Amino acid sequence: MKPKVGFMGLGIMGSAMAANVLKAGYPLVVYNRSPEKAAPLARQGAEVAASPRALAQAAQVIIAMVTGPEALYRLLFEAEGAAEALGPGKVFINMSSVSPSFTKEMAVQVAATGAAFVDAPVSGTKKPAEEGTLVILAGGKPERIKELEPLLLSMGKKVIYCGRVGQGSMMKMCINLLLGLMMAGFAEALTFGQLGGLDWQAMLDTIFSGPLNCGLYQMKAPQIQAKDYPPAFPLKHLAKDAKFIVDTAYELGAPVPGGHLLLHLYRTGWALGWGDQDISAIARVMEHLSGK
Amino acid sequence: MKPKVGFMGLGIMGSAMAANVLKAGYPLVVYNRSPEKAAPLARQGAEVAASPRALAQAAQVIIAMVTGPEALYRLLFEAEGAAEALGPGKVFINMSSVSPSFTKEMAVQVAATGAAFVDAPVSGTKKPAEEGTLVILAGGKPERIKELEPLLLSMGKKVIYCGRVGQGSMMKMCINLLLGLMMAGFAEALTFGQLGGLDWQAMLDTIFSGPLNCGLYQMKAPQIQAKDYPPAFPLKHLAKDAKFIVDTAYELGAPVPGGHLLLHLYRTGWALGWGDQDISAIARVMEHLSGK
Amino acid sequence: MKPKVGFMGLGIMGSAMAANVLKAGYPLVVYNRSPEKAAPLARQGAEVAASPRALAQAAQVIIAMVTGPEALYRLLFEAEGAAEALGPGKVFINMSSVSPSFTKEMAVQVAATGAAFVDAPVSGTKKPAEEGTLVILAGGKPERIKELEPLLLSMGKKVIYCGRVGQGSMMKMCINLLLGLMMAGFAEALTFGQLGGLDWQAMLDTIFSGPLNCGLYQMKAPQIQAKDYPPAFPLKHLAKDAKFIVDTAYELGAPVPGGHLLLHLYRTGWALGWGDQDISAIARVMEHLSGK
Amino acid sequence: MKPKVGFMGLGIMGSAMAANVLKAGYPLVVYNRSPEKAAPLARQGAEVAASPRALAQAAQVIIAMVTGPEALYRLLFEAEGAAEALGPGKVFINMSSVSPSFTKEMAVQVAATGAAFVDAPVSGTKKPAEEGTLVILAGGKPERIKELEPLLLSMGKKVIYCGRVGQGSMMKMCINLLLGLMMAGFAEALTFGQLGGLDWQAMLDTIFSGPLNCGLYQMKAPQIQAKDYPPAFPLKHLAKDAKFIVDTAYELGAPVPGGHLLLHLYRTGWALGWGDQDISAIARVMEHLSGK
Repeated sequence: MKPKVGFMGLGIMGSAMAANVLKAGYPLVVYNRSPEKAAPLARQGAEVAASPRALAQAAQVIIAMVTGPEALYRLLFEAEGAAEALGPGKVFINMSSVSPSFTKEMAVQVAATGAAFVDAPVSGTKKPAEEGTLVILAGGKPERIKELEPLLLSMGKKVIYCGRVGQGSMMKMCINLLLGLMMAGFAEALTFGQLGGLDWQAMLDTIFSGPLNCGLYQMKAPQIQAKDYPPAFPLKHLAKDAKFIVDTAYELGAPVPGGHLLLHLYRTGWALGWGDQDISAIARVMEHLSGK
Repeated sequence: MKPKVGFMGLGIMGSAMAANVLKAGYPLVVYNRSPEKAAPLARQGAEVAASPRALAQAAQVIIAMVTGPEALYRLLFEAEGAAEALGPGKVFINMSSVSPSFTKEMAVQVAATGAAFVDAPVSGTKKPAEEGTLVILAGGKPERIKELEPLLLSMGKKVIYCGRVGQGSMMKMCINLLLGLMMAGFAEALTFGQLGGLDWQAMLDTIFSGPLNCGLYQMKAPQIQAKDYPPAFPLKHLAKDAKFIVDTAYELGAPVPGGHLLLHLYRTGWALGWGDQDISAIARVMEHLSGK
Repeated sequence: MKPKVGFMGLGIMGSAMAANVLKAGYPLVVYNRSPEKAAPLARQGAEVAASPRALAQAAQVIIAMVTGPEALYRLLFEAEGAAEALGPGKVFINMSSVSPSFTKEMAVQVAATGAAFVDAPVSGTKKPAEEGTLVILAGGKPERIKELEPLLLSMGKKVIYCGRVGQGSMMKMCINLLLGLMMAGFAEALTFGQLGGLDWQAMLDTIFSGPLNCGLYQMKAPQIQAKDYPPAFPLKHLAKDAKFIVDTAYELGAPVPGGHLLLHLYRTGWALGWGDQDISAIARVMEHLSGK
Repeated sequence: MKPKVGFMGLGIMGSAMAANVLKAGYPLVVYNRSPEKAAPLARQGAEVAASPRALAQAAQVIIAMVTGPEALYRLLFEAEGAAEALGPGKVFINMSSVSPSFTKEMAVQVAATGAAFVDAPVSGTKKPAEEGTLVILAGGKPERIKELEPLLLSMGKKVIYCGRVGQGSMMKMCINLLLGLMMAGFAEALTFGQLGGLDWQAMLDTIFSGPLNCGLYQMKAPQIQAKDYPPAFPLKHLAKDAKFIVDTAYELGAPVPGGHLLLHLYRTGWALGWGDQDISAIARVMEHLSGK
């Protein structure tokens, strides 16, 4: 029998993921700070909890998908927080993007309640979230992750086992470092080419005809060309991830020359007012620097 | 009837490209500074010229595929250089990677002989050169490029028209900026992940399961894992291209924050002694910085 | 009458500063995690406390000068921590280098005990600490800082009022950003000149004959020339400050392209094993990158 | 007896330097592309030559102080260029800022005329040029430089012998690398501090009270505070020097992570339209990035 799932955080990603959990037949209870976002799920049959605590009381498996460590901390440990209702037999799955060290701190505190903790951030943005084709980056006890696999696969096409708790977040940092650099590199190369008088279609044709061709560039090229950046992955969220990457690299002593550039460029884009646009709006930063 | 083709520069790329020209049925005469590299082509039926001048005299279409502006200048304008035998009715095609501004200077000097100049650097490295699947980035008069298309397609799968003379080189800079950043980003992300305790296969599995998956990473991952970097595209050549990119961006006033990082990292790798290894050896620079 | 002073943290900086407090006639009680460092001060007449708590009980003004936020947190809030004995009428002065946001968090917690909190990091390293010529960067209530000025001036030549609590730390970040960039720039320029065949004395003569001449370069040039870097300001401490700078800039949305480079270079130097040498050992990083 | 001096290039620097040569009693002939700039010197007794060739014919020691390699090349080698009138017994002194490799190329060509070549760029900007307190960075035969010392000291306070021809330019690159990094670091630190709420005077007071204090910051602080940047050293000239630094470092295999940042920032400032303002206008780039 399917366990009852509690889903906290109904943003771009969370609402799509929760809908897929529901579609897969799991009894679902949801919570979101701004309750109006819960309405569409309620219409599809989900219960709506009045607080994280109420949600954690009602559900057996509790999932959080929020925008960062502050929001996650709040859901768990502030008044009426989920932690008050966690305990043996329950599982808490964090799918939000946070740093490995923060994940490990959370895990210790959740373990103190007697509940199990699983680390399961995702690779993929809006569209894979809607289509249930995310890649789930799981950290924790292997047998626990095995057990949760059917649930996780209701949201994704694949579960990759990354190691102990915190390593899911580490993998997320690793993949987002690459994502951020590829995105910024694409924007820089296209801006450079345009300033050098190249035709847009010829550039794309060249890029798409060889080994640099990838889904990311196929998705983002039209946005950059149209100078319109509807958020699938908001730029400020990648700026935040870049900060976690630099934090983590600092702890590890890992060289991240590109990671520093990433943090500089995306944080600048956010400071310039483009944080809520898609990461492809990093092209606006290049344009801003060109004086054109 | 197929024009007689002269091919100068028989390195990794050039010898494979010349072989494909020959295979396509073009009468071929070749020249290389170290003549022993011409032997395999001679066995396949190519003539061997004693000097660039002799080659240019014998051929109607003259192609150069050498390692940079100095070598190209030497072939054309030093004693016994090709320029001495160029003139009306002949076509000179530069396929070497040089900067747009150098290309334009060459073009003016070649035009002074009465010969036509076409700018046709390529996207793709050793394997596509061997298989005749390069992407040809052509700059020059459209009708001239149309005329040369059958010859160019003996070496590549596609000819992309990039604009007037120099724009082929501009496109090459644009694509190699992206290539260099993607390669360096891949090496950095993998190094970061390894220092963070991630499993190699899990990292690749994650990268290859989503929109960052591309031919480049499929090709280079085994080399980085094996710490063995047989040169398909030597690191020092990408360092050289990074220099042209920075030169060109300086002229254009184009912002290339990533381009500067590229130049720093690849030039460092070359200074550290890894210039003749593949561009994937940029992973060694990351390792060198990590102290591991 | 002079208040009794408690001084916690007797490293390179702290032991010199505490000695100056004692010399100025303040009754002094000291604490250090490794108690042997307290011996020289004990011989000069200082009491030695068994714990931070005991120190805070014995003193009216409590000073902390430790290596970072973790050490400061430990002194204040772990078992037998100073916070247990703080209360109305006592003043806690943090002189350690920590971030503005951490300072503000500490201030709130100290205020909860009823004690006053003053933020007073210093500009200057070993020698000014010994000579009592530090520059004190004070944040807090102006009247409180006025009151403490005689005590602060026993350690420094000048007290600069920086604003409310946290602004002393902000000023410290600001000055150390400049310090780090000047130091790294000096090392880079000298390495570049040497690789270009310039004579060491001619380089220094040039730099010291014009508007770039400054005390920092006068101090550090002999160390770089001798390739011997006795720590006046350990490289890893500047790496740590670079991290706080990047953290703070991230919060503020301030552009710190140089700050990112700083963090990269100094953290790399630490990872390479040179964290306990002086910041001038950043020259070793340049050398390491040059392959010479 | 004093040799007759020919001075070409009467910009901000050149006109001040030529005036000092005249004041020191040297017979002087001048040339400038826009002849109106020669008028003040003509009123003080200098001859005005109609072309570089005429100047070189009239003078024994020919000095060039122009904005870069293109201008220098033009003066020497285009129609009516100085080279046509150079020959044994004449000395050509280049004081313009160009790269070491360009200097060496010039030297070879000048030597072919039979004239001697001396490399003597300067450290110092407008004010030292006016006051005759530049530092002269001389490369060439030691005995030749000894001989020219009285003339050079009419423009400067000191002649530093840097090595063979080209090493004067190498020293100029070395010092300008440091200058550019110190200037950019100052602007970045002040912008960071302001965004963090620090008071302007308190920041300067802190910087000027310690080992970071230097003539450069004393000069530039008022301009940055007033947001008014009258050119003593135009930003685009430092961008150009940054390019030569990166070019030279590329040839040497020298690591210049700061040099790359320099090129990026100053070239960006130029692209944004601030090239004719002082180098202190790099503060505008920081502001531009901050979105404030």
